[in-house]
Amino acid sequence: MAKLPLIVFDVNETLLDLETMEPVFARIFGDSNAMRLWFANFIMYSAALTVAGCYVPFTDIGAAVMKMLADTRGIRIDEGDKKELTDKFSTMPPHAEVPAALRKLRAVGFRLFTLTDNLLEVQTRQLTHGGIVDLFERRFSADRVKHHKPSRQAYGYVERELGAKPAEFCLIACHTWDTLGAVAAGWEAALIKRPGNDLLGVGPQPQVVGRDLDDVADQLIRRYGAKA
Amino acid sequence: MAKLPLIVFDVNETLLDLETMEPVFARIFGDSNAMRLWFANFIMYSAALTVAGCYVPFTDIGAAVMKMLADTRGIRIDEGDKKELTDKFSTMPPHAEVPAALRKLRAVGFRLFTLTDNLLEVQTRQLTHGGIVDLFERRFSADRVKHHKPSRQAYGYVERELGAKPAEFCLIACHTWDTLGAVAAGWEAALIKRPGNDLLGVGPQPQVVGRDLDDVADQLIRRYGAKA
Repeated sequence: MAKLPLIVFDVNETLLDLETMEPVFARIFGDSNAMRLWFANFIMYSAALTVAGCYVPFTDIGAAVMKMLADTRGIRIDEGDKKELTDKFSTMPPHAEVPAALRKLRAVGFRLFTLTDNLLEVQTRQLTHGGIVDLFERRFSADRVKHHKPSRQAYGYVERELGAKPAEFCLIACHTWDTLGAVAAGWEAALIKRPGNDLLGVGPQPQVVGRDLDDVADQLIRRYGAKA
Repeated sequence: MAKLPLIVFDVNETLLDLETMEPVFARIFGDSNAMRLWFANFIMYSAALTVAGCYVPFTDIGAAVMKMLADTRGIRIDEGDKKELTDKFSTMPPHAEVPAALRKLRAVGFRLFTLTDNLLEVQTRQLTHGGIVDLFERRFSADRVKHHKPSRQAYGYVERELGAKPAEFCLIACHTWDTLGAVAAGWEAALIKRPGNDLLGVGPQPQVVGRDLDDVADQLIRRYGAKA
């Protein structure tokens, strides 16, 4: 059996169901595609601010992008909308297969961690509400190094904290912007092709691609010859 | 009269009408919002690859993101679609007020340049087709330093080429991700609030905000007391 990599999970959409946010966006914006446009702009501004050398906490970027999109359409977001959006984002349920797939990985000896751009308190609230917080040995937030994923610094932070080399890690995410950052950092990466997400034909490619976490878990177990 | 800043223009959507791309997207994706989702993902992957330290030419990212979005919806983009998209992108017309507003700025003594993430040949084709290429003293592409805007390196490249300090520049763009990078680099910036674009409540803010280039030109002429 090859030495098992330390598995680091992205959280939003990878573990938790982002599409549960869609009805709130559809109500406020009158457009069922508004959630995807918001999320793409959210990550775009997170990366743009990071590349410009300006750190802004992730939640603040998300709220500012929401207001920006509303402004472009002459829509006013009131306090009730804001509260509903924040509450929904903090309490997205795990995708159906996630709890069992996480337990399967642990059962064969993989050590599980998280790394998100969310503040640690938001992530903790999310994973606790989802009933999966105890399946992770430690949780990390890119906020601690003030560089959002996919910057090298975010992945390097986890390496330092766990005292391990890049080649000892595997990132699991459903976003290609995240896997390309991990692979560029020397990690292995697995992409989950959740609805609305897919591979990008340019840039560093993930080593494993699966349709859900259960599929990715099975592929990793085979890849490393892990046995319970 | 204060010393006039060197004015550097973003090209796509700032000078040229990106919304002329919408019908092609609507036809291929059956969704009038697909163009905005593509453009947001395009800039997001451009910034994500830049922040991860992986350079990919801008046009290649745009094509790869197009395929990715089509893949997420089970849509196949054929060679004819690809050619139409490339042709449309290379021949977007200038916004109605742009040629006269550029001439007005030149008439009072401003020196005009461009800086885009596009390859120089794409930009040259665009501005030539739009009939405004001769209004710029020089055109720059971030491709020359292999770092897309809004990274510090892209703005620094123009500074070195023109032998001027950050404070001597003003970027005009309709994208907040671009103005925030310029302001972070020590430039002044003016944002044009084109449809679908607006200010972001976090990060470095532009000094000038206008509804179109004519409005921004008038504000800059007043700001610097420029007289013909």
